[in-house]
Amino acid sequence: MATATLLLPICGVALFLSMLVNPCYSQQFAISFQRPADCDVEHFYDISSLSCVKCGPNQRRSATGFSCDCVTGYRVLATNGASITCQQCPPEKPAVTEDGYGCIRCPGILTEQGTCQCPPGNILVERDVQGNPLEQARCEVCNGTDPALSSPNNYGDRCERCQTSFINTSQSCVCGSNILAGGLCFPPNNLPVPTAINPNVNYAELTIPVQSAWFYKNLYSSAAACLVYTNLTACQALGNMCVMNMHSFSSVANDACGLYNTIFRATAALGSTQDISYWRANLPWLYYGDQPGLANRVLQTDPLPTGFSFKGLNRNADVNLVAAVYSARGDFLQWETVGGNNLQLCPDSPSRQKAAYVFGTAYQETCVLSVADLLHMYTEPLFYDVFVDLSQGKDRRLLPLPTCNLNQQYNGKFINRGNKNDWYLSRRVLLVDTLSGREKSLSSLPKVMRIASSIRIGFQLVPGTQKGQVFPPLLTVSYSDILITDPNTQSVSVSFAVYYEMDQTEARVKTDIALGVLGGVSVLYSLVKTASWKRRIGSPLIGMETVLKFLLFYAGDLANVFFVITMGTGLYWLIFYKAQHFVSVLLPLPGQQEERFITYVGCAFALKTVQFLHKLILQLSVDIFFIDWERPRGNANKLVQGNGEAKRDHSPVSIWRTYFVANEWNEIQTVRKISPTFQVMAVLFLLEVVGFSSLALRDPWSDLQRSPQSYSPPYSLILRYGLAATLWVCMGLLQMVFFTVFHERFVEDKIRQFVDLCSISNISVLLLSHRCFGYYIHGRSVHGHADTNMEEMNTNLKREAESLCGQRGLLPNTDTQTFQVSITSRLRQQYDRILEPLSRRNGPSRLVDAASGHPFDQSTRAYNTMNRFLGSVIDHAHRDMEYIVRDKLFFERVIGMEFMEPMDKSIFYNDDSHSFSDILFYGNEATLLIFDTLFFCVVDLGAQSFVLAAILTYAQQLLFRLIRDTVGRRNLANKTLVDKRFLI
Amino acid sequence: MATATLLLPICGVALFLSMLVNPCYSQQFAISFQRPADCDVEHFYDISSLSCVKCGPNQRRSATGFSCDCVTGYRVLATNGASITCQQCPPEKPAVTEDGYGCIRCPGILTEQGTCQCPPGNILVERDVQGNPLEQARCEVCNGTDPALSSPNNYGDRCERCQTSFINTSQSCVCGSNILAGGLCFPPNNLPVPTAINPNVNYAELTIPVQSAWFYKNLYSSAAACLVYTNLTACQALGNMCVMNMHSFSSVANDACGLYNTIFRATAALGSTQDISYWRANLPWLYYGDQPGLANRVLQTDPLPTGFSFKGLNRNADVNLVAAVYSARGDFLQWETVGGNNLQLCPDSPSRQKAAYVFGTAYQETCVLSVADLLHMYTEPLFYDVFVDLSQGKDRRLLPLPTCNLNQQYNGKFINRGNKNDWYLSRRVLLVDTLSGREKSLSSLPKVMRIASSIRIGFQLVPGTQKGQVFPPLLTVSYSDILITDPNTQSVSVSFAVYYEMDQTEARVKTDIALGVLGGVSVLYSLVKTASWKRRIGSPLIGMETVLKFLLFYAGDLANVFFVITMGTGLYWLIFYKAQHFVSVLLPLPGQQEERFITYVGCAFALKTVQFLHKLILQLSVDIFFIDWERPRGNANKLVQGNGEAKRDHSPVSIWRTYFVANEWNEIQTVRKISPTFQVMAVLFLLEVVGFSSLALRDPWSDLQRSPQSYSPPYSLILRYGLAATLWVCMGLLQMVFFTVFHERFVEDKIRQFVDLCSISNISVLLLSHRCFGYYIHGRSVHGHADTNMEEMNTNLKREAESLCGQRGLLPNTDTQTFQVSITSRLRQQYDRILEPLSRRNGPSRLVDAASGHPFDQSTRAYNTMNRFLGSVIDHAHRDMEYIVRDKLFFERVIGMEFMEPMDKSIFYNDDSHSFSDILFYGNEATLLIFDTLFFCVVDLGAQSFVLAAILTYAQQLLFRLIRDTVGRRNLANKTLVDKRFLI
Repeated sequence: MATATLLLPICGVALFLSMLVNPCYSQQFAISFQRPADCDVEHFYDISSLSCVKCGPNQRRSATGFSCDCVTGYRVLATNGASITCQQCPPEKPAVTEDGYGCIRCPGILTEQGTCQCPPGNILVERDVQGNPLEQARCEVCNGTDPALSSPNNYGDRCERCQTSFINTSQSCVCGSNILAGGLCFPPNNLPVPTAINPNVNYAELTIPVQSAWFYKNLYSSAAACLVYTNLTACQALGNMCVMNMHSFSSVANDACGLYNTIFRATAALGSTQDISYWRANLPWLYYGDQPGLANRVLQTDPLPTGFSFKGLNRNADVNLVAAVYSARGDFLQWETVGGNNLQLCPDSPSRQKAAYVFGTAYQETCVLSVADLLHMYTEPLFYDVFVDLSQGKDRRLLPLPTCNLNQQYNGKFINRGNKNDWYLSRRVLLVDTLSGREKSLSSLPKVMRIASSIRIGFQLVPGTQKGQVFPPLLTVSYSDILITDPNTQSVSVSFAVYYEMDQTEARVKTDIALGVLGGVSVLYSLVKTASWKRRIGSPLIGMETVLKFLLFYAGDLANVFFVITMGTGLYWLIFYKAQHFVSVLLPLPGQQEERFITYVGCAFALKTVQFLHKLILQLSVDIFFIDWERPRGNANKLVQGNGEAKRDHSPVSIWRTYFVANEWNEIQTVRKISPTFQVMAVLFLLEVVGFSSLALRDPWSDLQRSPQSYSPPYSLILRYGLAATLWVCMGLLQMVFFTVFHERFVEDKIRQFVDLCSISNISVLLLSHRCFGYYIHGRSVHGHADTNMEEMNTNLKREAESLCGQRGLLPNTDTQTFQVSITSRLRQQYDRILEPLSRRNGPSRLVDAASGHPFDQSTRAYNTMNRFLGSVIDHAHRDMEYIVRDKLFFERVIGMEFMEPMDKSIFYNDDSHSFSDILFYGNEATLLIFDTLFFCVVDLGAQSFVLAAILTYAQQLLFRLIRDTVGRRNLANKTLVDKRFLI
Repeated sequence: MATATLLLPICGVALFLSMLVNPCYSQQFAISFQRPADCDVEHFYDISSLSCVKCGPNQRRSATGFSCDCVTGYRVLATNGASITCQQCPPEKPAVTEDGYGCIRCPGILTEQGTCQCPPGNILVERDVQGNPLEQARCEVCNGTDPALSSPNNYGDRCERCQTSFINTSQSCVCGSNILAGGLCFPPNNLPVPTAINPNVNYAELTIPVQSAWFYKNLYSSAAACLVYTNLTACQALGNMCVMNMHSFSSVANDACGLYNTIFRATAALGSTQDISYWRANLPWLYYGDQPGLANRVLQTDPLPTGFSFKGLNRNADVNLVAAVYSARGDFLQWETVGGNNLQLCPDSPSRQKAAYVFGTAYQETCVLSVADLLHMYTEPLFYDVFVDLSQGKDRRLLPLPTCNLNQQYNGKFINRGNKNDWYLSRRVLLVDTLSGREKSLSSLPKVMRIASSIRIGFQLVPGTQKGQVFPPLLTVSYSDILITDPNTQSVSVSFAVYYEMDQTEARVKTDIALGVLGGVSVLYSLVKTASWKRRIGSPLIGMETVLKFLLFYAGDLANVFFVITMGTGLYWLIFYKAQHFVSVLLPLPGQQEERFITYVGCAFALKTVQFLHKLILQLSVDIFFIDWERPRGNANKLVQGNGEAKRDHSPVSIWRTYFVANEWNEIQTVRKISPTFQVMAVLFLLEVVGFSSLALRDPWSDLQRSPQSYSPPYSLILRYGLAATLWVCMGLLQMVFFTVFHERFVEDKIRQFVDLCSISNISVLLLSHRCFGYYIHGRSVHGHADTNMEEMNTNLKREAESLCGQRGLLPNTDTQTFQVSITSRLRQQYDRILEPLSRRNGPSRLVDAASGHPFDQSTRAYNTMNRFLGSVIDHAHRDMEYIVRDKLFFERVIGMEFMEPMDKSIFYNDDSHSFSDILFYGNEATLLIFDTLFFCVVDLGAQSFVLAAILTYAQQLLFRLIRDTVGRRNLANKTLVDKRFLI
């Protein structure tokens, strides 16, 4: 501290200058840090000044270290407050009395401390009965025979009645030839308890033998005292040692549980207590018995008398557990209500810890504890016999909790980790055992520590109950053995959990049935779709492509089946679990029980993705052509002039209406029935801000806002899925209702606008989604011309509004402008033939093409040819490409397939519902919505974050909209020959 | 339990039928719940069977309740395991010996328990020295005089040397006429300590006096023993009583602190210890002194020798606190490292609790504890003297933590709740005191409990330090007094906090300076803007409107100033606080220090909103007209035919190009330089998923992902703002760079597309944002005609691509198509005159209008007139409405004001930067971005939720886009006379 030494003179000057006004504090308050252990033998620790202070002459530090004693051979002459004066004892009285204030002569030798020493079994007498000091101390022998039966007390200064077991065994205070163990005297009769006990503790995880000082000292004496003297405390202590040995036993009978079982058998005559056959009188109850299958019978035969209910007047959701607590020595300490933190080793706030004992709340707490802290806190283990408190009013009854100790071994095998039929249920658990692992002495640091690193309480619902009845809960304990090397750096992870389960077989069977039935139906539906597709492409052959198409259709239908089933399941759990009054269902457990569900969701998503991509690709390759009905106005002039050049020069039909229509078509490609971004935001708002996400917590409460102080159980994946999917679909439906009922009627209907625009601009649209099937929007202007100035446009619009002109329909006096068309193969062939030069343009450039004229010319020529050709077809100008107009049958509409094949004539089906939107996003809202839902849910299931799911869903929508827009525009430009630059 | 009784016979039958295969367990495992307290006097509690068992004959329950004793007058004859046999004592030996195994004759009367009773001061002797039982017990008097100096021991069965204070005072074991207090004997000399002490505890919050049994018993004796015998433990006990009395004192000297002060003064001769003037030798150190202003000097004069640093090799962020712990009796217990849970009453996991002692981490923990639990856990208070451990290697030094006890009173006034200059700093704190409130006896339930309900440790940074130096931390304690009525239902809220502060004056001054300077500049800038506006509206008058305009401009500029300052401040704290190695800055504290900042943010947002709405309204009322350059192709015919009708009939100029351009203009109204929804999503992603929000936590670490197990400090509002604003602006800038550098160049540039479209479609656009100022997009087709078919369009486009035709500019051989225009008032008047009939149309309908022809005709006529008029102006056809084209001066461009007034001729300024987008969202990206940023931040500051802020920002964007779109479309339809139905 160079700074400090430098500061000193400066401080002095400062002090001199500012004198008392601003004293220099830098050295004033800092003190030197001395601890009691820092003082040497000539100093004591002054608790007032917190420093070491020198003792007076002839003195040394006392045992506590907080005062001084006289050195050997000196007595206390006077005390003056904290300080004493010491004086050397005279040679004739060399010893100091026990109280330190006098000098005395000894009958024998002196101890190291300078007091008199008497032989063992003697007492030291320094004063007479009235308290007068003797000149010379006496050593007296205690009379150990009847009737005195006395021996020296603990201090060695009085004779007292000796321990009963000595008197009982030998009728004196000497054990003699009997067996002396643990301070007790046992008769040498042939006890069933072997004297050669095994003091080793079984740490199965470590495979090192630890000879326990505690077992060594107490195992035999406890067993013997329990058997010979029926000492209840000794019996409990023996039982506790068996628990410390993990209830493990084998054919060898000299370990703790072996001795317990020996005594259990030897005391068969005493009978059982409390009517429980394996609870022997005087002994602790440690085992349920060893019949095969007993665990199943205990756990699944007889429900608790009262059922649990979450709501209503008879609300009963408290799990009342009590425990009888014993010390390692076998003393009964108290009855404790389980709660607070007696089974929960992780520290937490009381209100949160209490949540573990509310029925239906999945509780899970894990933390890492420092080994040093544990050693400091748990010097001795406590033993808990846990019961369910069934008390109702005055009738106070308990039901013991069967315990499954995962570390229990039988002949070296972990029997409780396998089949439930082979389990050995037991009783009594310990939490932290730092006692049995002490090897040398009981005061040394333990070599091994054992801790209940996982405690789980499981409730199982009685199948089919409507009253919330449960079987006796099972306490599962798993212990960890920690080899103590450096306690300050070692740590151990502990967990406590309460879980609730029910038999899920029935639900699983129902799901399987639903899946089977719906899956079968969807096969049929997909077959119909495939057949329809076959008819629409006008090909009767069944090949690989047909099979592939069937599989693609089947993927979509199966995805819907999976979606319906998973969403139904999620909704079922959400409603039934959260709304039940009396407990009748419990959530599937995480892990195995949820796995099947997750698989279904995964299937739904994967299949839906296939369907979505399929639809997307189909949409991106649709055939489209704009038929311009406008005829040049200059036709009249041509006749007058008769000049070929003039004919072409004058008043060409403006292409701008086609540009306008193409531009609008380009814009409605990705219009949807909902606003996808609003959808994402609204669902996120409901889940995260309004707090619907709380509904997915594994507890029976349906509050949306939880206090941050209260316990927050883990989420249930099924509930999360059910909640997210339901909210998404509901919000989507709400939006669709809003858009169709309100927005499209009163604000803007993009699809109808487009149809109107076609009509006003005198342009028809032919869309071919399949080879021989498609849609036709009839846009022939009722005014004959649309390529005109503002004045005429306004007049036309006004006339139409006042119904002064004809109707817009294809057939006279009808309004139907939109049709589904089944065209003949002949028509399609002609169509393809006209477009051939263009499709060749997109192929690899060849020499022969380069010669065949400019691509611009080619495409314009093809455009004009197609325009004329299609116009004449619609105008019935082609005899061999005639068509008829008819209504679609109801059944045709339902299954989406045309019964009539367009052999000779094309068929135009009236279609008022604008089904041409099927080749836009607009007409596929269901697929898109379900795909978005599944995307959102799958991301959430994977990441457990609604925010991330929302963001990725937005990104997904953005990406696919971009693809649809960009590729769709390219397709539009290619097919309609409208320059891409006008599609803005 | 009607069920149980009904079940019994059924069980019997079931048992009979299924015999052992499936025994009926319903009654087998349930046991009756009996506790030790449930057993009456004739029963003992069998710890093995957990039930009450009857004692044998002549026996009753023992004191523990777990075994039986013989009744009075009976001795134990034999013990057989747990059971004993009792035998009545014969009449000649009616008393039972103390050990209970023998009968004896008494010298005097018998006690109630049937043993012999001796007078006080006598001992009972039942055996001789060798342990042989006497026929008759003896009562012996202890010799209290020198040299025996003995008195009966605690059991009353031996004479021992009596207590030193008796011997010192009276040279015998009788206190006699001296003062006997607390088991000690004091000389009757005139001690400065008054014997009439005040045993009342001062519970200031409750106003009921509580006479403390502890004070009554120990106050005088502790004081006297401290003073007379210099008993260090007694001194500490006295000090502890003063602490239990909240360090409060007054002019009366007979309460705990009064006695402490009396002794403090009386022992002035002993001098101070540890060089601290108020730390008297032998006494505990409780006060820092009573000079005025001392608190300030202690807390702000001398920093800790070592500085704190967060990173690097010399990382030193651990706050090492140690405490000397004393019991209520005054015993020194140990040195404890503060941490774990000695000052933190709220239970929590060790790793989270440890976070309190990491420098720079604002720590706050609050919980509600049950009074019953507290009473159970804290039977005696512990007293802590807290120090900072300054040890470095072998040099071990401590710095005491000054304590500010908010409950400390001086003459009935809470002195530590007011001005810091008047504070009385103290030492030693207690946590839970259930001792002083015990009124009748020390074993009774306390009437009042006192708990340290708020403990705060505050660190203050040395101003201007670069080495992380801090002043001594201050420990502030506030106690709550709880009147115990029903402990099981009562609870108390406790909190523990560690906070870090620095003097914020400098930062505040700097902010103020920046605000003043920038505010002044913005006044100037707003004045220029107002002047520019005056010029542009062509009005020289200064009226209310001008002032209003000035204020509106000023609001915008001031908003920018506030935004820059707040964002700068936020960024400053974010960077400097999170990135510093040596601690040099600490965050402003929540509350007062942050309030100013929040106000600034509020101002910025409010002013920005005003500016945004102003701009929005201006944009919605802009004047626009599309000038169609296309001339009818039929002109040639007219000459040939000379027929007026034919002229009109043939080839009218198609309006569809105008529709197309208007439609495009409608679409680019709300186009922005960034994607606003992507912006929201990206910022949300960064904050919530990537975890940037962790940077806003009040700790010095910059990890993005925190473990959910670790402690999570509260958020700093300033950091949240700085973080959110920075991320938002950065993401916005990134997007702008992406869109301008990549997207607009390689994918799509909506603005350039529009200009190109104008040119291709042969349509010019005149936009008038002010009365005499606006923008002109020159769109005259270089091909003369645009109203043509696809073939010609493609040819034209190709020719232009190959530069085979003229350039698009207004002036020959230039490319400049976009201009800012300052028009003359005359031109504007003409413009208005043409539009007059239309503006009248929007007014209330009048009779005179109804007669003046159809509105359609009117508007078409106005449209044609305007088209011709503007065309002729651009073509220099109007002599009196001439214009010139020139470049804008650099300075004109910078300050956004034209120096030349268009008096005679209108002025067209070349404008290559498409500044007409200023009347679109596109050209106001800065305003929109800052408005969005502030909106996002303000919502987040209010709700502390980035998710909510993101959702509301999205909704806000949606709303304003909708308004801009809808109203902008209506304006467009009104001004350009294009039917609204074509703006889709």
